Amino acid sequence: MPAKALTIAPGRLIKTIHETAQFGAKFAWGSASTETGVCRLALSDEDKKVKDWFYEETKKLGCEIKIDEVGNMFAIYPGKNTGPPTCMGSHLDTQPTGGRYDGILGVLSGLEVLRTFKDNGFTPNYPVGVINWMNEEGARFPQSLMASSVWAGLQTKEEIYKMESVTDSKPVTVKHELERIGYLGDIPANYEANPIAAHFELHIEQGPILEEQKKEIGIVVGVQAYVWYNVIVKGKAQHTGTTPLNSRADALLTASQMVVKANEIAHKNSGLCSVGILNLEPAVANVIPNKVSFTLDARHETDQGLATIINELKEEFELIAEKGNGSKTSKPLKVEFEHIYTSPAVHFNEKCIQCVEESSNALFGEENCIKMISGAGHDSCSTSARVPTGFIFIPSKDGVSHNPEEYSTPEQCENGFKTLLNAVIKYDELRAIGEA
Amino acid sequence: MPAKALTIAPGRLIKTIHETAQFGAKFAWGSASTETGVCRLALSDEDKKVKDWFYEETKKLGCEIKIDEVGNMFAIYPGKNTGPPTCMGSHLDTQPTGGRYDGILGVLSGLEVLRTFKDNGFTPNYPVGVINWMNEEGARFPQSLMASSVWAGLQTKEEIYKMESVTDSKPVTVKHELERIGYLGDIPANYEANPIAAHFELHIEQGPILEEQKKEIGIVVGVQAYVWYNVIVKGKAQHTGTTPLNSRADALLTASQMVVKANEIAHKNSGLCSVGILNLEPAVANVIPNKVSFTLDARHETDQGLATIINELKEEFELIAEKGNGSKTSKPLKVEFEHIYTSPAVHFNEKCIQCVEESSNALFGEENCIKMISGAGHDSCSTSARVPTGFIFIPSKDGVSHNPEEYSTPEQCENGFKTLLNAVIKYDELRAIGEA
Repeated sequence: MPAKALTIAPGRLIKTIHETAQFGAKFAWGSASTETGVCRLALSDEDKKVKDWFYEETKKLGCEIKIDEVGNMFAIYPGKNTGPPTCMGSHLDTQPTGGRYDGILGVLSGLEVLRTFKDNGFTPNYPVGVINWMNEEGARFPQSLMASSVWAGLQTKEEIYKMESVTDSKPVTVKHELERIGYLGDIPANYEANPIAAHFELHIEQGPILEEQKKEIGIVVGVQAYVWYNVIVKGKAQHTGTTPLNSRADALLTASQMVVKANEIAHKNSGLCSVGILNLEPAVANVIPNKVSFTLDARHETDQGLATIINELKEEFELIAEKGNGSKTSKPLKVEFEHIYTSPAVHFNEKCIQCVEESSNALFGEENCIKMISGAGHDSCSTSARVPTGFIFIPSKDGVSHNPEEYSTPEQCENGFKTLLNAVIKYDELRAIGEA
Repeated sequence: MPAKALTIAPGRLIKTIHETAQFGAKFAWGSASTETGVCRLALSDEDKKVKDWFYEETKKLGCEIKIDEVGNMFAIYPGKNTGPPTCMGSHLDTQPTGGRYDGILGVLSGLEVLRTFKDNGFTPNYPVGVINWMNEEGARFPQSLMASSVWAGLQTKEEIYKMESVTDSKPVTVKHELERIGYLGDIPANYEANPIAAHFELHIEQGPILEEQKKEIGIVVGVQAYVWYNVIVKGKAQHTGTTPLNSRADALLTASQMVVKANEIAHKNSGLCSVGILNLEPAVANVIPNKVSFTLDARHETDQGLATIINELKEEFELIAEKGNGSKTSKPLKVEFEHIYTSPAVHFNEKCIQCVEESSNALFGEENCIKMISGAGHDSCSTSARVPTGFIFIPSKDGVSHNPEEYSTPEQCENGFKTLLNAVIKYDELRAIGEA
C-alpha cells in the first residue's frame, strides 16, 4: 500500500486534543467547553492521568511502551523490520496558564499517525514511535527540556532527580514525584541504551510569522541561538526635586537608554533583544534610582550573529554608562553584565528537513510553506544533538502562547498532522532504501 | 543695643545639634560619635524625648510654650511690645534613615537665636518665636508638611487625626500617638486663632547647587511647582524568542522611550522630570512586558512652566505610544495618565527675602550668596499661604539628604544661624517702624 493512499479520519485529531484537555482544563475564555486553557504541570496528578491515558491508547494500537528512568514515554508501533524507531515526539505537560496546543499537538498528532497506520492496516518498513517527553516546560521544576536533555546525555538523571518544585507550597523533588505517580521507569534514559533513528516534532509556532505571511506550514530548519544576561546599572540616589539634571547619575534614565539601544542593535543585526524583567532601587517616587537591574534576552539565527550582537551591546552600554547624565559632580555610571545562560544555535538534519518540505509542498503547494527558524527551544533541540531531527510549525492565532487563549484552527492542526504523517513515511522509505 | 552688636557663642549650635541627635541616633557611618544618622519618626518615643527637651530648653529662656491640637510647639520669647511673634520654624522629626540636619538645623538655630538674645540681654521689639512643626517628613504618617498645613487651614485636624502609621507593625492613628506621648495640646491649630507675624526657616539645601557654585548662603525666593503622575503603558505580552521586532507591542521599550523623552523635555524647559518607581508585568525574562506603570515627577520654577512641561509630556508620550514598536499586526500601544498630586509654585514674601538678602550679603558678601528656588517642599510652603515667609539654604555635602551621611560643616551651620539671626532682627526692626 503506497503511503499516499492512506485514508485519514478527519476531525479525530482535534477531538482527541479536546478529549485530553479534560486532564487539567482551566481558565475559561469563552462559553464553549473547548474554550479553556490547560494547567497540567509536569508529574502532577493531572499529568499522571494524561500519561495513563496515553499508555492505554497506544497499547490499544499494539504498541510496545517503554517508560524510562526520567518519566519519558516511548510508544513503539512495529515495522516490517526491527531496529530503532523513527519517532515523533513532544510533550503533554503545560505551563501553569497553558493552552490546549503547545506540545500536546505534537504528541497527539504522533498518536494520530499511528492510529492512521492501524486503520489502514499499514506497516512501516521500520518501527515508528511516539514520545511523550517529561517536563519540557520547566514550569513546576524550573528547567525546560528537562527529560529530553537527560536522554540526550546533556545532563545526568541524578542532577534532575534532586531538583525541587517551585509551584508547590511544600517543594518536592522530581524523583519523589516520578515515584509517587508511578512513572519512574526502568528503561535507561539514554540515547545509546534506548536509541531512536530520528525525531520529528510538530508544534504550534507560538509566534506571528506564519499568520502574518499567510502560510500554512513552517518547515523549521533550526532554532536560533540565545543568551541571557542580567545587566546592572549603578548610579546615585538623589532627591528628584533638589538635584539639577546636570548633577544626576540617574540609573533608570541610563537603563532606559540601554533598552532603546538594545532594540536598535537587534534591528541592525536582524536579531532579537528583549528586556522582560527590570527592578530598581530604592523605588520611591521622589528619589532618583541608584540601581537598576534588568534581564537582557538576545537571540540570533547564528552563533556568530549572536556574538556580534553581544559585543555591540557591551560596547554601547559601556559608552552610555560612561557618558552618564551629563553630570558635572557625579561620577559616570557603572554597568555590569552577569551571564545567566547561553543556548547555541541548532541546525536540523537535511534529510529530515527534506522529508518535511516534500510532504508540506505536496500537500499545500510551495507557495503556502516557508522555511523558517524557531525562536523558542523544544525537545527537538535535545534530540538534534544525537539523531536526525525534523520540525514542523503550524500558525498560532495572534502569535499567542503560554496563555489559555492559545489557538490554532482544527484545519491548521490537521494540516500539521498530515505533514507529519507524510514526512515520517518519507523518512521510513528513505531508511528502507538505505538513504537515511 | 543695636542688633549687629549681639555676641554669639561659637560652636554652641553644632554642639546642640549633636546633643539632640542622641534622641534616635542610628546608622553609624564613621567612627566618631557624631558620625551617625538619626531615626526619629513623628510622635515616636524618640520624638517625645526631643519635644520634652525642646520644651525644657525654651522654658529656661523664659519662653511661653504653646502646644496646639496637632502637636505643633510654639516657644515664644517676649518682646517690648505684644502682638503675634515673628517666628522661626522647621521640624525635629526625621526620615527612617534620616540625618542630623534636615529640619533639625532650622529649629535648633531658632533656639540658638533666642539663646543669643538671652545671653545679650536683648529684647526684640515684638515677640520672637521658634516653632517645631509636627510631622514634616510624612514618613511614619504618610503626608508631608502634615501639621503646618493644618495650622495654615489647608486641611482639617480631623483629617489628620485618623491617619494611620505605615511604619508600625500594628498601625496606630495620629490622634492616638498625640495622646500617648502627651502632645495633644489645647491651643487651636489655626493661623487665625494662634497667629504669627512671619515665618523664617533655615534649612540644608538637600541638593548640590550651593556646593557646586561655591556659595555660602542660598536666599530662597520660592519653591518650585511640581506634579506627580502615574503613567501606564499598555502593550502586548509575547514570547521574546518567537516574536519578530516588527510584530511587538513592547510596553517596556515604549516606556523607556518615554523616560528618555521626559529628560529631554525637562532640559528644554529648564525644569526637572524624574521617574522613581517603575513596575512591569508579567516580569518574566522571556516574555515581552504588556504593561508598565511608572511615576513621573515633573517640576518647574513657575506654574506656567510646569503646565508647558505637562502638555509636552502628554503630547510626546501619546506620539510615542501611537507609533508603537513599528508593528504590523499589533495595535499601537496605549498610554494613560493618572494624576496623583499637584503642588503649585510658592513665592516667598519680598520683605522677608529682603531681610535674608541684606543679612547674608552683609555677613558673607554678595558674591558668596545666591538667590535660588527650593526643589523640595518645606513647612514654609504652608506658612507662606498665610503669613510673610522667608527661607535660607546652607550647602549640603554632595547634595545628600534623607540619608545618615547627610552633612554640612559646623561653619556652614553657623553661617546659616547668623543669617537667620540677623534676618529676624531686621524683620523685627521693620515691624517697629511699620514697614512690615
